[in-house]
Amino acid sequence: MSIDVVRKWVDRPLGMQDLFPQQAKFRRKVESVLLEEFDEHGFEMVSCGAFEYVDTLLRGRAAAEAEAWVRVFDTLGRTVALRPEMTPSIARMAAPVLSGGNKEIKWCYAERVYHRTDDPASLSWVSGRAAESTQVGVEWIGPSSHEVDAKLLLMCQSGLKRLGLKDWQMVVSHAGFASAFLSASGIESAVVDDLLAMLARGDYVGFRRIVDGQEDTELASGDVLLSVLSKLDPFSSSRLTDLIHVSWKDASLGKQVEHYWDSLVQFAAQLKSMGLANQLTFDLTLTRDISYYTGIVFEVFANGVGAPVALGGRYDGLLASFGAPAPAVGFTYEVERLMAALSEIEWTTQPTNDGETGASE
Amino acid sequence: MSIDVVRKWVDRPLGMQDLFPQQAKFRRKVESVLLEEFDEHGFEMVSCGAFEYVDTLLRGRAAAEAEAWVRVFDTLGRTVALRPEMTPSIARMAAPVLSGGNKEIKWCYAERVYHRTDDPASLSWVSGRAAESTQVGVEWIGPSSHEVDAKLLLMCQSGLKRLGLKDWQMVVSHAGFASAFLSASGIESAVVDDLLAMLARGDYVGFRRIVDGQEDTELASGDVLLSVLSKLDPFSSSRLTDLIHVSWKDASLGKQVEHYWDSLVQFAAQLKSMGLANQLTFDLTLTRDISYYTGIVFEVFANGVGAPVALGGRYDGLLASFGAPAPAVGFTYEVERLMAALSEIEWTTQPTNDGETGASE
Repeated sequence: MSIDVVRKWVDRPLGMQDLFPQQAKFRRKVESVLLEEFDEHGFEMVSCGAFEYVDTLLRGRAAAEAEAWVRVFDTLGRTVALRPEMTPSIARMAAPVLSGGNKEIKWCYAERVYHRTDDPASLSWVSGRAAESTQVGVEWIGPSSHEVDAKLLLMCQSGLKRLGLKDWQMVVSHAGFASAFLSASGIESAVVDDLLAMLARGDYVGFRRIVDGQEDTELASGDVLLSVLSKLDPFSSSRLTDLIHVSWKDASLGKQVEHYWDSLVQFAAQLKSMGLANQLTFDLTLTRDISYYTGIVFEVFANGVGAPVALGGRYDGLLASFGAPAPAVGFTYEVERLMAALSEIEWTTQPTNDGETGASE
Repeated sequence: MSIDVVRKWVDRPLGMQDLFPQQAKFRRKVESVLLEEFDEHGFEMVSCGAFEYVDTLLRGRAAAEAEAWVRVFDTLGRTVALRPEMTPSIARMAAPVLSGGNKEIKWCYAERVYHRTDDPASLSWVSGRAAESTQVGVEWIGPSSHEVDAKLLLMCQSGLKRLGLKDWQMVVSHAGFASAFLSASGIESAVVDDLLAMLARGDYVGFRRIVDGQEDTELASGDVLLSVLSKLDPFSSSRLTDLIHVSWKDASLGKQVEHYWDSLVQFAAQLKSMGLANQLTFDLTLTRDISYYTGIVFEVFANGVGAPVALGGRYDGLLASFGAPAPAVGFTYEVERLMAALSEIEWTTQPTNDGETGASE
């Protein structure tokens, strides 16, 4: 095409991404490698339609969490949405199976998930709110123990190694700890919710500003609270009261914090016994923006990719809201983010002036 | 679960389908087998987002064809739709690449496609308008010849054999023939459109009723027209005027019909030379409901499945509407319909009372 010819090519909608040769094949390859890993561990693939009732997707979650979903009305006037993640669909499918007598369900999936494009963040695959992206994940429903959680983390790491990913960091936290800790420290529950939202976004400046704006002069500063949360290391095996010298404003909440801590210390011991002590770090400021998590939560970060390449946690209350109470834990890989992290190793792609994409190994 | 306990499980939206273990794995396996076939023939996988502008999807098509699509407004107020098929997206992606100097593009894909659920037909995977289904297909852009078309049909058959599908029939037609034939026979163009819609739906009763309701007493009966169309066999290598004794009402349209016929006879000779004569049949009543087709069109039917398990054709005008004129031909397999056709051989699945699905080999 000569440079004096200007053509207007047909656009794709906001947030949609084209994958040219090599890229599309590479994505399917990444999916397949991860599915193989799951298969070897006894997880069976399931699938379902891309639409769910909003009511289904909201079980165990706050209504505000639905803001970023692509919603439409079905022909009966009920609101359906393109799923933003797979866990609610899996829970919906698993409930009758559990009720039928199955004690353990090990399922995996490889599916596209969706978010609204109002937010500029939806335009990037690494933002964490891509308009469309691919998740390959597992749900392990039934058993509940530190060993099960540790095995899940181990399998997550094993999948990353199978892909040949180098330079990744796994960060582990607990869904209830920061909330209980902040409440026990004397912060009102509405403010705690705001603080957790700041942590989920990684906005530490906002966190400090909110804490330091409170009228209660007896509160610790935002800096101190953040510093305590981020430095607590369950591998140290210490009692919480030996690590931090606090007088809880609310004794029963304080007990709750200490209970979570003891559980984390036991989990750390389990990890150590499985040789995982050097494969991950704890950071109790890590907070997920999904409210159905009840136990450990974790994220995996890779060099050069802003959002986690894998993430998950334990959600022991969700299945009950689908009519079949059972503990469960799961995680998902974010395939396009993994591709970005792997791309320096595996392939590079450069769009030409004509929008064509060439790939080299 | 005892029979005196009645539970209300959470529903999935209308038209959405759950795939339990075995089923989901089987679907991915079918996709992979077909993608392997394409890969061996030099077709490279591409992908794109599930949403396209309605304007993109309508290029080369009539506005009425958009009725069955799932449409939403994007944040700028433009109408986007979940793609009902992949060809327009591929054409959109291919146009800049062609313009950049590529003479030939051989791309394949494995993607989900969508239809609205207003229509009860959307609730079935074999209806041809499933709410969500999986298409694995190819687009071969650039070359145009009887040999290319024949090679495409051969590859389509080769994929079916690779899957182990038995008892299938490939039916070939021409996108322009029936229309030109009916017009040349003296039927008004608005009525011809109605008749083609009847043929596309396989509604032969409706076809006869419309023809026989015309006021023009010199017209052939609906029965005669249908019978002529369905019996014409390009393998016979005869001249059209020797097969049917017609005086065209419109001589130039008559020439057009004869031109299409000669092309079909040449195509049949090409098929015969490649040993395909016994692998397919011609039926010139076969009409696709997509208006961008310009040349041969075909469908493959399998035992026990009402809608085609594969379908495609030549569309030499579509790329021009994306700014890069080029002939093209393509087809897609309908994966869930193939699964239904293969299921007796491969697996059976029976839902239990609890909605659980067991699978046996």
